[in-house]
Amino acid sequence: MTKIGITAPKGFQAAGVACGLKKNGNRDLAMVVSDNIAQAAGIFTTNVVKGHSLQWSREKIKAGKARAVVINSGCANACVGPKGDEDAAAMASYAAQLVNCMPEEVMLGSTGVIGFRLDMAKIKNGIDEAFKTLSYEGGSLASKAIMTTDTFPKEAASSFELDGKTVTIGGMAKGSGMIHPNMATMISVLTTDADISQEFLNKALKSVADRSFNRVSVDGDTSVCDKVLILANGFAGNTRIASEGPAYDAFVNALHDVSVTLSKMLAKDGEGATKLIEIRAEHCSDKEAAHLILNAVAKSPLVKTALFGQDANWGRIFTAAGYSGAQFNPENVDIYLGDLLVCKNGVALPFDEDLALKILKENEIVITIDLKTGEINDRIWTCDLSLDYVKINGSYRS
Amino acid sequence: MTKIGITAPKGFQAAGVACGLKKNGNRDLAMVVSDNIAQAAGIFTTNVVKGHSLQWSREKIKAGKARAVVINSGCANACVGPKGDEDAAAMASYAAQLVNCMPEEVMLGSTGVIGFRLDMAKIKNGIDEAFKTLSYEGGSLASKAIMTTDTFPKEAASSFELDGKTVTIGGMAKGSGMIHPNMATMISVLTTDADISQEFLNKALKSVADRSFNRVSVDGDTSVCDKVLILANGFAGNTRIASEGPAYDAFVNALHDVSVTLSKMLAKDGEGATKLIEIRAEHCSDKEAAHLILNAVAKSPLVKTALFGQDANWGRIFTAAGYSGAQFNPENVDIYLGDLLVCKNGVALPFDEDLALKILKENEIVITIDLKTGEINDRIWTCDLSLDYVKINGSYRS
Repeated sequence: MTKIGITAPKGFQAAGVACGLKKNGNRDLAMVVSDNIAQAAGIFTTNVVKGHSLQWSREKIKAGKARAVVINSGCANACVGPKGDEDAAAMASYAAQLVNCMPEEVMLGSTGVIGFRLDMAKIKNGIDEAFKTLSYEGGSLASKAIMTTDTFPKEAASSFELDGKTVTIGGMAKGSGMIHPNMATMISVLTTDADISQEFLNKALKSVADRSFNRVSVDGDTSVCDKVLILANGFAGNTRIASEGPAYDAFVNALHDVSVTLSKMLAKDGEGATKLIEIRAEHCSDKEAAHLILNAVAKSPLVKTALFGQDANWGRIFTAAGYSGAQFNPENVDIYLGDLLVCKNGVALPFDEDLALKILKENEIVITIDLKTGEINDRIWTCDLSLDYVKINGSYRS
Repeated sequence: MTKIGITAPKGFQAAGVACGLKKNGNRDLAMVVSDNIAQAAGIFTTNVVKGHSLQWSREKIKAGKARAVVINSGCANACVGPKGDEDAAAMASYAAQLVNCMPEEVMLGSTGVIGFRLDMAKIKNGIDEAFKTLSYEGGSLASKAIMTTDTFPKEAASSFELDGKTVTIGGMAKGSGMIHPNMATMISVLTTDADISQEFLNKALKSVADRSFNRVSVDGDTSVCDKVLILANGFAGNTRIASEGPAYDAFVNALHDVSVTLSKMLAKDGEGATKLIEIRAEHCSDKEAAHLILNAVAKSPLVKTALFGQDANWGRIFTAAGYSGAQFNPENVDIYLGDLLVCKNGVALPFDEDLALKILKENEIVITIDLKTGEINDRIWTCDLSLDYVKINGSYRS
């Protein structure tokens, strides 16, 4: 059986255990350990409010090395003052002791409710248990342990050949509410057995994130704990990637595959979502215009409720593009639901309502806004806004 | 009985009739006529997509004069191409003929679904009927005829003394979804019998709108038909206001009263809303930071669903402020639900959950985010995001 997820690449063990942070008794602590000290890179939330565990990782990853990652769900370890920093440091130290590395080689993640301290007794028990159960097949359990309101675990992997060696990239992600471009309540951990310099690992991650994780929006909210980490341990045995060229390109392509797969899973599992929506902005004059339009349409509660209701109310799409802040000539705009043209040159077209309904009943819908102006195309993944979104988020703390 | 609404000032007649644009048979055409040619000013949507009726008014009001206003609900007259402009011109001409004025002295508004042409036969019948039923007590019927998903009509009036004369300002407004600062699906008409120059009328409207209509957010969506119009006919007999001074200040104060009253009604009647939420950003370093924070918090679906669920999840408020784009030191931030301090200097405080629940059960809730940095205070009105919002907007066209 082909392995998927973070233990697909060689030399990574993982575990996912329940230590009592989640009231329902589900798995809530994940651990990933590389057999050696891996090259590491990360991208972190742009929120000015930052969780304590996240701040630890953001600081420590600057050295470009990591041996392990510990992530808990059920508590964000955010906004609790200096004690939150102490708890993060203690969590890293405790794991480091077991793994036999330096505390600063342990990256951390915490996700859940804000404003409560971590229960460190539970965390330590969890780390103990996770360390004991680490395995080269443990990726799936880890992917379950990082879930909050996710309805399914999110794993992906991709392999390619390099110098006659098989290089694999694996990944897991969590997050379904509070998701918006520039790192949302999303946490993702990517692993690879590629041998790649820290500089090029970092560069690859940044370039791919802008076309994957930073193109997912569930509700426009971004959280204080969002991050993507990647660890590269070199076990594939390829010649080290340390420059531009075909090897680097192959690595970026595979990383893109994994990241896009995880990103689409995030959108599809948006809180309460019934549909995965891909929104495309085409032939825009510049990147900024495309970005503004995609964000506005993907965030619009009116667009998202119409899609939930399978209502071909394209006027809301056009309206959202119009208030996005992007400058464009509305008289050039074509709008498509799937392949169905509903608005041409800014003017309503008569269209087959039955066909529109058929398109909107699908689980995956593509909406295209064609500005017919320039050369820039971009896209974003989002989901509809359902009754369940409100139910889930009306009582998250309780 | 003290009159409220647009016929409270002297010299304004109004009517509201049903002409069949709304499928449910409710009133859908409003007419307001001043006994003379009034000074007029307006503020229009910033959406790059603009409805045809709105474009007419936006163009014609540049001359600073108006005799009448005709507004239909049930169809936005937007995105239908040049025919939409022709329909708007025909609508104005038809009303002008009856009122006996120039077409360009008739301001128009259309609100409802985008992408469908106005049924001009119905519009003309409606204008006939409205003209026949114009009355000095007709303001309330007009306020009903401009409603779309509004659950109650919105009227207000305020009077003050000037030169021994009573000056009155009246107003009506509609709009409950697609509402966000900078003119949302909101349409408001204000009338006054003050004698005021067009220049100062315009100035007063702009200054007041920034503290009232532009401080309302229901869902972050803004529409292609949003506008505020004001007509001043001078029937109060005061000395013309044409300079800064106590008379102008008194006018602005009364206009502010009327506009804030209408704005709070708009937020309170947000689609599906169960609560009016006032969000305050205090002691900010600059206006832009306050604006960004208020917009982000008021738009956040996570904040709004938590308020619907009466869940004291202040972490979402802090998080939204954090991703707003405003730069601030999170370690200075205090957050209050009503008078209850729940976060001090960026750190969670233990608080009485029963008291928090009592505050969140109220119909009107004040949330304060105190940055403790500068001198700038601002506020915005919004509402919660309920199950009914999704139900209403999942099937608006049908």
